[in-house]
Amino acid sequence: MRDSRPPGRAAAAPLAPGPEFDLIRGFLAGGSAVRPDVRVGPGDDCAVVAGDGIALSTDMSVEGVHFRREWLSPAEIGWRAAAAALSDLAAVAARPIGILVSLAVPAEEADALAPALMAGCREAVESVGGTLLGGDLTRSPGPVVIDVTVVGEAPNPVLRSGARMGDEVWVTGQLGGAAAFVSAMLAGEEPRRGARERFARPLPRVREARWLAERVGPTAMIDLSDGLAGDAAHIAAASGLAVLLVPELLPVHPAARSRSRPRTVRAALTGGEDYELCLTAPTGAVAPHADAFHAAFGVALTCVGRTGGGDGVWWVDAEGHRTPMELGGWQHFRGEA
Amino acid sequence: MRDSRPPGRAAAAPLAPGPEFDLIRGFLAGGSAVRPDVRVGPGDDCAVVAGDGIALSTDMSVEGVHFRREWLSPAEIGWRAAAAALSDLAAVAARPIGILVSLAVPAEEADALAPALMAGCREAVESVGGTLLGGDLTRSPGPVVIDVTVVGEAPNPVLRSGARMGDEVWVTGQLGGAAAFVSAMLAGEEPRRGARERFARPLPRVREARWLAERVGPTAMIDLSDGLAGDAAHIAAASGLAVLLVPELLPVHPAARSRSRPRTVRAALTGGEDYELCLTAPTGAVAPHADAFHAAFGVALTCVGRTGGGDGVWWVDAEGHRTPMELGGWQHFRGEA
Repeated sequence: MRDSRPPGRAAAAPLAPGPEFDLIRGFLAGGSAVRPDVRVGPGDDCAVVAGDGIALSTDMSVEGVHFRREWLSPAEIGWRAAAAALSDLAAVAARPIGILVSLAVPAEEADALAPALMAGCREAVESVGGTLLGGDLTRSPGPVVIDVTVVGEAPNPVLRSGARMGDEVWVTGQLGGAAAFVSAMLAGEEPRRGARERFARPLPRVREARWLAERVGPTAMIDLSDGLAGDAAHIAAASGLAVLLVPELLPVHPAARSRSRPRTVRAALTGGEDYELCLTAPTGAVAPHADAFHAAFGVALTCVGRTGGGDGVWWVDAEGHRTPMELGGWQHFRGEA
Repeated sequence: MRDSRPPGRAAAAPLAPGPEFDLIRGFLAGGSAVRPDVRVGPGDDCAVVAGDGIALSTDMSVEGVHFRREWLSPAEIGWRAAAAALSDLAAVAARPIGILVSLAVPAEEADALAPALMAGCREAVESVGGTLLGGDLTRSPGPVVIDVTVVGEAPNPVLRSGARMGDEVWVTGQLGGAAAFVSAMLAGEEPRRGARERFARPLPRVREARWLAERVGPTAMIDLSDGLAGDAAHIAAASGLAVLLVPELLPVHPAARSRSRPRTVRAALTGGEDYELCLTAPTGAVAPHADAFHAAFGVALTCVGRTGGGDGVWWVDAEGHRTPMELGGWQHFRGEA
């Protein structure tokens, strides 16, 4: 063990409220003993094991829940499944080593479908410097299922639990684009420009996260898979504080903007699967780097609020008045693609 | 990198012939570059990454393919899925750190089913000294799907590729019991004594493998998931030699024995999902330890043949005459549970 974290670090990190998370809390009840080979246990974006800090996470994509085959090519489905998992490595600022991919596909389509799905996974992991390490292939009696496990090096992982009172809250990129694509498709409308790419080819912010970890030193970080409201609630719960967001500051993807400002804000706040990053850092630590970050990656860094006392996620106005936020995040278990 | 393996070791190990493996070969075509952080790439029981040697493998279980809910309790389904994956850690003689479990379950059953499935997974990993590291939970539009990724420490992994000409071939335990349960259930017959437990509660030979690695030094090892014929073919392909089996020596589970000796042998050879180990070792290296092994684990160690020149898996008689073996192994992709 290279770092000086107390042994209790291996305990499960607190999760935000919600039915999916209630089930997960149940799985972990009566938790496992503290172990020297587990630095970060369940409940963060990745587990981190072994002395060197190996970050691990797994993400399952199910046809009809996370994607529809009418909407995406098999290579896009594979890319998207792998990118969603790789985004968890970004969230702890890990350097990707590779992925393991388990595929279940209908037997009669296997010869055509499995290689295309796998090629998409491989392209995604190779785009961030990792490799295909292994996997499993089985037939499915129905839906295509892809489970991607990511493996990376994270000697100094950035966790959800490190935010401190008075930190600023920042996000990368623009929010709501992927959800705008889903909404348009479900409504039978033509998706607006740029929305399809945000859904079909999300870019895991792996290099961006490592850049930030090296130059800015975020106190906490999470990737935005369920929407900013839901994911910021995990930072709040894990760090034992409140996240206070300023609605006017949210960077909304053009495809998610509407004439109604509340609707626009809601889209940015609850739209899932953007795979951008949300991070906290001491006041003034990020701003000096925002231009260089944009120059390096073509991605904006936007301050969207700060942390404060209490718990949960709130709106805050210029006078510091809080308004409860009752929007919820994207929950795969109840939501639909 | 602590060991002295040549860098080429990270390339994919050759797999035996077969349609499932043809697809997998396709996934790996144009393979990835040799990397210092990948000691063992795809094609063995586990990938092994990072300087310390972290072993990783993933195994997906799909309702209607690998199990039926009428046959097993949810906790048994979870145990079995995790045990199958943990068996891959045994195959490289790794020490388990933990598992990540991705679950897809029908939404209306999630509250009852998911905790029971996960409890079975957790019991299995804790039985071999590992812990639940994380996972994912999603709804399924149909089948229950469990994907288990195993993580272990393997500074000196035992690979499929290390068998040498003239080695003995040994197996642990008795073969064919799990398949006997499946056959009986499919035929609407009462399974014979002991068969159900072999299918419902397979015991990953994790401690047995580490004992063997420490005392015997196997040159190659694999776990028996697809049947001895199919799995020994992987050792043959990866090591560049032939595996020669003596039919009279095969240790057949009592539930798999029939009056027809050829049928009994076939059951032991092609019955999948026993999760015993097959290992090779220099002549005379294992026998002196067989009694101590049995005393320690209550499990037999049986010499079933030897390696020779050529390729593939053959029957061999006392005069050394080879007979082709045209039985095939259990292929999930074509087989049925």
